[in-house]
Amino acid sequence: MTSDRFITFTSSPVPRMATWDLDDVITALSEPRRQSFQSWSPERTHVPLPSREVLLRIVNLLRAALFPFHFGNPDLGETSTRYFVGHTLNEALQLLEEQIRREQYLIQPECQWQEQQIKAQARATVQAFAQQLPQFKTLLESDVVAAYRGDPAAKNLDEVLFCYPGITAITYHRIAHALYCLHSSLLARMIAEIGHSITGIDIHPGASIGQGFFIDHGTGVVIGETTIIGDRVRIYQAVTLGAKSFPRDESGSLVKGHARHPVIEDDVVIYSGATILGRVTIGQAATIGGNVWLTRSVPPGAFVSQAQVREEIFDAGAGI
Amino acid sequence: MTSDRFITFTSSPVPRMATWDLDDVITALSEPRRQSFQSWSPERTHVPLPSREVLLRIVNLLRAALFPFHFGNPDLGETSTRYFVGHTLNEALQLLEEQIRREQYLIQPECQWQEQQIKAQARATVQAFAQQLPQFKTLLESDVVAAYRGDPAAKNLDEVLFCYPGITAITYHRIAHALYCLHSSLLARMIAEIGHSITGIDIHPGASIGQGFFIDHGTGVVIGETTIIGDRVRIYQAVTLGAKSFPRDESGSLVKGHARHPVIEDDVVIYSGATILGRVTIGQAATIGGNVWLTRSVPPGAFVSQAQVREEIFDAGAGI
Amino acid sequence: MTSDRFITFTSSPVPRMATWDLDDVITALSEPRRQSFQSWSPERTHVPLPSREVLLRIVNLLRAALFPFHFGNPDLGETSTRYFVGHTLNEALQLLEEQIRREQYLIQPECQWQEQQIKAQARATVQAFAQQLPQFKTLLESDVVAAYRGDPAAKNLDEVLFCYPGITAITYHRIAHALYCLHSSLLARMIAEIGHSITGIDIHPGASIGQGFFIDHGTGVVIGETTIIGDRVRIYQAVTLGAKSFPRDESGSLVKGHARHPVIEDDVVIYSGATILGRVTIGQAATIGGNVWLTRSVPPGAFVSQAQVREEIFDAGAGI
Amino acid sequence: MTSDRFITFTSSPVPRMATWDLDDVITALSEPRRQSFQSWSPERTHVPLPSREVLLRIVNLLRAALFPFHFGNPDLGETSTRYFVGHTLNEALQLLEEQIRREQYLIQPECQWQEQQIKAQARATVQAFAQQLPQFKTLLESDVVAAYRGDPAAKNLDEVLFCYPGITAITYHRIAHALYCLHSSLLARMIAEIGHSITGIDIHPGASIGQGFFIDHGTGVVIGETTIIGDRVRIYQAVTLGAKSFPRDESGSLVKGHARHPVIEDDVVIYSGATILGRVTIGQAATIGGNVWLTRSVPPGAFVSQAQVREEIFDAGAGI
Amino acid sequence: MTSDRFITFTSSPVPRMATWDLDDVITALSEPRRQSFQSWSPERTHVPLPSREVLLRIVNLLRAALFPFHFGNPDLGETSTRYFVGHTLNEALQLLEEQIRREQYLIQPECQWQEQQIKAQARATVQAFAQQLPQFKTLLESDVVAAYRGDPAAKNLDEVLFCYPGITAITYHRIAHALYCLHSSLLARMIAEIGHSITGIDIHPGASIGQGFFIDHGTGVVIGETTIIGDRVRIYQAVTLGAKSFPRDESGSLVKGHARHPVIEDDVVIYSGATILGRVTIGQAATIGGNVWLTRSVPPGAFVSQAQVREEIFDAGAGI
Amino acid sequence: MTSDRFITFTSSPVPRMATWDLDDVITALSEPRRQSFQSWSPERTHVPLPSREVLLRIVNLLRAALFPFHFGNPDLGETSTRYFVGHTLNEALQLLEEQIRREQYLIQPECQWQEQQIKAQARATVQAFAQQLPQFKTLLESDVVAAYRGDPAAKNLDEVLFCYPGITAITYHRIAHALYCLHSSLLARMIAEIGHSITGIDIHPGASIGQGFFIDHGTGVVIGETTIIGDRVRIYQAVTLGAKSFPRDESGSLVKGHARHPVIEDDVVIYSGATILGRVTIGQAATIGGNVWLTRSVPPGAFVSQAQVREEIFDAGAGI
Repeated sequence: MTSDRFITFTSSPVPRMATWDLDDVITALSEPRRQSFQSWSPERTHVPLPSREVLLRIVNLLRAALFPFHFGNPDLGETSTRYFVGHTLNEALQLLEEQIRREQYLIQPECQWQEQQIKAQARATVQAFAQQLPQFKTLLESDVVAAYRGDPAAKNLDEVLFCYPGITAITYHRIAHALYCLHSSLLARMIAEIGHSITGIDIHPGASIGQGFFIDHGTGVVIGETTIIGDRVRIYQAVTLGAKSFPRDESGSLVKGHARHPVIEDDVVIYSGATILGRVTIGQAATIGGNVWLTRSVPPGAFVSQAQVREEIFDAGAGI
Repeated sequence: MTSDRFITFTSSPVPRMATWDLDDVITALSEPRRQSFQSWSPERTHVPLPSREVLLRIVNLLRAALFPFHFGNPDLGETSTRYFVGHTLNEALQLLEEQIRREQYLIQPECQWQEQQIKAQARATVQAFAQQLPQFKTLLESDVVAAYRGDPAAKNLDEVLFCYPGITAITYHRIAHALYCLHSSLLARMIAEIGHSITGIDIHPGASIGQGFFIDHGTGVVIGETTIIGDRVRIYQAVTLGAKSFPRDESGSLVKGHARHPVIEDDVVIYSGATILGRVTIGQAATIGGNVWLTRSVPPGAFVSQAQVREEIFDAGAGI
Repeated sequence: MTSDRFITFTSSPVPRMATWDLDDVITALSEPRRQSFQSWSPERTHVPLPSREVLLRIVNLLRAALFPFHFGNPDLGETSTRYFVGHTLNEALQLLEEQIRREQYLIQPECQWQEQQIKAQARATVQAFAQQLPQFKTLLESDVVAAYRGDPAAKNLDEVLFCYPGITAITYHRIAHALYCLHSSLLARMIAEIGHSITGIDIHPGASIGQGFFIDHGTGVVIGETTIIGDRVRIYQAVTLGAKSFPRDESGSLVKGHARHPVIEDDVVIYSGATILGRVTIGQAATIGGNVWLTRSVPPGAFVSQAQVREEIFDAGAGI
Repeated sequence: MTSDRFITFTSSPVPRMATWDLDDVITALSEPRRQSFQSWSPERTHVPLPSREVLLRIVNLLRAALFPFHFGNPDLGETSTRYFVGHTLNEALQLLEEQIRREQYLIQPECQWQEQQIKAQARATVQAFAQQLPQFKTLLESDVVAAYRGDPAAKNLDEVLFCYPGITAITYHRIAHALYCLHSSLLARMIAEIGHSITGIDIHPGASIGQGFFIDHGTGVVIGETTIIGDRVRIYQAVTLGAKSFPRDESGSLVKGHARHPVIEDDVVIYSGATILGRVTIGQAATIGGNVWLTRSVPPGAFVSQAQVREEIFDAGAGI
Repeated sequence: MTSDRFITFTSSPVPRMATWDLDDVITALSEPRRQSFQSWSPERTHVPLPSREVLLRIVNLLRAALFPFHFGNPDLGETSTRYFVGHTLNEALQLLEEQIRREQYLIQPECQWQEQQIKAQARATVQAFAQQLPQFKTLLESDVVAAYRGDPAAKNLDEVLFCYPGITAITYHRIAHALYCLHSSLLARMIAEIGHSITGIDIHPGASIGQGFFIDHGTGVVIGETTIIGDRVRIYQAVTLGAKSFPRDESGSLVKGHARHPVIEDDVVIYSGATILGRVTIGQAATIGGNVWLTRSVPPGAFVSQAQVREEIFDAGAGI
Repeated sequence: MTSDRFITFTSSPVPRMATWDLDDVITALSEPRRQSFQSWSPERTHVPLPSREVLLRIVNLLRAALFPFHFGNPDLGETSTRYFVGHTLNEALQLLEEQIRREQYLIQPECQWQEQQIKAQARATVQAFAQQLPQFKTLLESDVVAAYRGDPAAKNLDEVLFCYPGITAITYHRIAHALYCLHSSLLARMIAEIGHSITGIDIHPGASIGQGFFIDHGTGVVIGETTIIGDRVRIYQAVTLGAKSFPRDESGSLVKGHARHPVIEDDVVIYSGATILGRVTIGQAATIGGNVWLTRSVPPGAFVSQAQVREEIFDAGAGI
């Protein structure tokens, strides 16, 4: 069939230079069993994992539902607000339910795939979460007012809500903390870490924080898992509320979950760079000066400066 | 190290139901050599092929550069138009140059990869193409005016430019035809086929078409490769300007490229469903009635209706 | 400052081959005044034009609001449907209001930019349009049932709604027709043309169509501006309901807008390829056979085949 | 607290003009029960429906897996082809499995939600589908060669694969037909309709088509559900292979599914505009001329032109 | 009509598990009036608010216009650069004008909606901003050279421009500062905060900064609103240029806007972790050591280390 | 031609208010030669530059290939994992090869455009990089386990891999360091800076870091170019491993590239805020307390607190 002599069909390329041979690399990377994890349990791992991208989307949807004029649709009219909020919330909660289900599958200890139970539990968790949203809005508004009152550079509430990283951080935290309390601690941590990446403010979702909380500038702030913070507390950049030491059990493993971070009572102010370590209590309306290093409790109304804590440092300097 | 007993790491899923085994299918599909194409030439095929998506983007950019207010940025001011057009055109032509280069690599007969030559040729082709753009704009404006004058339903020129599939079809054709004349016949065909898909109007890029061309409705129109159409011609839906028969060479293969489609002179009107086959000439200002089936030439000014051609049909009805 | 000898900064490329010189082309394309349009009126043209992309989005949003389970969100629950529909509708109507405003600016004859008036009128038009949506849904459901009953290949209503191009076409038409009646004829035409491009079915938005309308296959169907179609009419592919001739005024221009297309009464069936031209009436429950060419009225209940119309063709064959 | 006098917070807009009141419209559109469908069965309808967008993506992925150099990644090397094909196929089949599951939920007659059964069946269907892909590739290559050999305008096989709407149509058809045979007739129809929209060629997924099938131009072609087409058949634009009449049962409903479309044997050619209706047989290597209207069988090798069928038209002209 | 018995239509889902009831939550969140803000003024709030996403896009466009080869189109030729820059700038400034208008609506004290005035003012602001862009480019180039000269790890200017967070921060600052000076302080703050989030460097847009400014590493740097920084200043990570105390007026509210941050003269270097608080002056070419805590002025050329300021700390340690 | 009196065509807008005149600004910004860089070498700059966006995509693809279940496709089955990893890796490496080529063009000292050489070198670099990926995975897994063991708040390994910024930072670093060692130092720096922006942790790609490395919280950490870190080292937020001083050559320029940062031996722990400057050695298993400022070496096993280093501070406080 000579007429086909010039038929050409591009289905097998001959590359211009030697292609890389990745087969070995791919095989190594696809190797299912990681020998380094001797306790790896295959039964627990065949479920889809939560997704950071989806969690980011969930938080953005929740913010839009909480503050539709600032983070939703700026052209909303009176009537459409309700539909916008309802629709946005529905989307957020549907996505959240699926992520909660994924976490539940992952952490079930005995691999009994009681699918209906897990679904019902995820549904109940989302319900409980949703009921708290109006309270979130009130709390976040108290945070916005606190920032406005606490910073001479703040021009109006809109600026605070739009611009202050402390507001972003506390928004992420309040969402993450609610999930933490509802036993979705992995999702809570993932959400907290997104907030940390955006703001440089690292608040563990376990921390309990009252209303009217204000962090100014914020980069470098660290607030630990068992911290308790009262109402109207003000904190500046690079403040650490940390643990003093990590007890280990007889096998040498860290003891997890015990109360090891400070209690900050109402109306306390902590200036930039201060470090407070251990389960100590900073009494109501106390002020902690910049760069102070503290490992003991402070009475209400006290004013602690670097000079005052110097001896303590000399004595207990290794207080880490 | 008993404390690692509960370390878990999700890196090897055990799927809930048997996975499909696609290895054989994938192997079969990845098989490089297609045995059915005995003339397949491996040397010619190791280059990236043109992309339909990129060509669609190129046409959209060119349309935006030709009619920036209708297909570009509706908020353009006087000054910014020039920058918009310049920037849009640059982007279109850079993309086009790459596509032309890809076609050139593909069709070079002897696989002598003279890369610099091909690059220089692609650059020259784009230059020549770009020089024709102002003329395109004039031609397309003549087409728009023709449609406005020819259709009582047309309310204004904007409606014609926005809505008429005939205008979309002729825009694609004028671009495709220019590339066809510049020896980029594969790109020309790909662009023509995008236009065909959008409008249902199938114009081979080889067809030569004068100014003031108007196709109304258009679905089902077919205009063949060697068709020649004069100025101010008007055509309705389902008109075919086709070939009558396909001569074959001594080996039985089709003879490609000879003149086999009609010549339509200036000011001709062809109503819907008419079929004109072969290298016949429809004389100036002739009118061809709806559903007429024609395989012979028609003098200038003639008016051909179904009734008039009936005998001819009885004689030569199989005239395909 | 010799230490700067090796400072390099990439801000001025020297291209490897001569760049194209597009300045002349760009100048020609940016030339504001098109000399070919002597009546071009600069005062009327400084407003943003409607956008085909936005109109496509509007239609998709409206379809999702009308049939949320098929074209909206397949995971909708009972409660969320209402919010989804409300939110989707709001977005569609906001976008539509802006497009209506743009058309109004464009077509105002005397350039009196009474911005508030135009805004109020656009708002009123959208209001009137929105009020018709529940009726649209009822009409479209009647079309879906008609298709299901009329096609032996239809398995269920979902298939009809998802798959039938006739349903897509009538959806676009019902939206476009409503806008046409509300004096947004440019938007109406643009929407109709999108539907035409998707389905190959060309219905002018001026055409009036009753309930239970079914077009099967549909490619090549043309329905003209002043066509009137009753209830439960069925049409097949390549049917033309067109105009017979275009009267011109004393200046030689087309007379625009007069009634020139057929009236199709209730329960008529028109088989594929039939052509009906002029302001004729096809009486109730008449059947028009395939490929029939008709330029006269037909009484109710009549059955017209190619054979029956042959003489007519011989007499009036040029009936275009 | 006078200092708050100037605190402002943008959470309640007062729109500049009266907002539209959509509550009634939204209520009407969200009304769950459509009274017009008295047989509507609530138990069957609470499952997510298939998605046209996802099906379009599936077809694109399958095309990329079948022809990775033309529709996949033009920069593929020898090694990476295999990974590209495998990955692309996996994605396509995972998406397809979910869509099949959705169809199964929808069409189960007695609403017994045997979820595991449906999942297993969907998995099995996808498996069976995947096994046919290598054969698809062979068939489609035969179609490409047929087009190259049948059209003098075709320059090479790449052009045919890239540009010919007939190739696009047969690609969609072969995928849709396989699903139709695997009892996913809704998905099959949805895929077929996407192909119809792109090409103007309407092939019902039930039609059985042999190898080396070529449709040129194609706009307006209609091929019915029970059509059977042999090998190496060639068809031109606007050809209809349709049904002659639709029998109804005693209740007046259409009888669905019986053989009612033509059988086209090997090597037949059917020219543009021809209409063949009913369960007739066009014998091997027969040629049907342009615009011919046929409702009877034709022997092998016959040549049928308009003239030859004229009497028949006069006799049986209403043959619809 | 028994034949409809099997007609099904999916328009009312019955969800598999009880849906959540969000109506109360949605009502609470949509509640227009926030009781907690007694001074909330409804007249001021019915305008669209600025958008953080749009501001991010504006900054990216401006960076592309300022450094088209690094942040624009890497394939720019000599000719196209001009069109790229012009087009990019136009888009940036159009978007900016709209955002400025939104801020103006928001902050107008007496709600006199003099729309034309606001538009004219926004246009004038954008004009003034655009005029400064060439100067920005010169300033930013001086910053790039300063970083190259100041960091032994810097390999070339391209690396500095691409990689150094200090360059990113100063780019955002110079844009934000210009807007701050043009009375768009909300946009300025929003832009500054985007830069803060990306780099961890928090510069208030009110701060005035000379040429050749270099921040190395940068995380944790805070520069207050009324800071004044001369030419060729170098700063390291975690440096704070802050306020010492916040005076309140008789009502207890913060006094906003007075000069309360340091003045840093030319050629000063401030090492990491240093804190300088209050309206003090650091004299020309002075060096401030790492972790130094300073609340008093320093003469030109001085070298201040932790040891030198120790007494001061003991005396005034609470200097926050 | 009076009938054209009402023809309108929107091609020249007359803006409602004076447009801005940007021509001078655009000219200034497009000015090719930056006079401020006297050493600017035109021959070196006509090549496309690397792209930060593409590098971000490369890192994301590599992460997905290394941990497909966490950062790739959560629905992967056993079979498809291999294809997913292979395909993802191919895409990552193809993109990387192009970026490496761009860097090579940029930094070639004498502008000898030996294109083939550069291509071959880029290919070889990518090959060498790819071979290290399995080792990367092992190293990163050791880092994950170290974080799990070192933080009492860590609940499981998945949480660590998903959430810990220290893991993100070390992932970016290990990729960047490999490129640094393969002489792609610009790409390395760009990748490192992306990681810095996301995590607030600034690790120069030149730093050499052993296995089991754990950074907790991390914001403000700075690790310099010539730092060497052993196995199982633990570091907290705001730790600086920096240089003490920057020697200059006789011309006053910085001497680049010499060893100037600390050596940290195995099992060292450095608490938050500690600063270690210069080429000093922290001996095996030493512990450095919070906020310690160190400019001298420390023996193995030592425990250094603020109190212990006080004298040193008084002596050498300006040790920056």
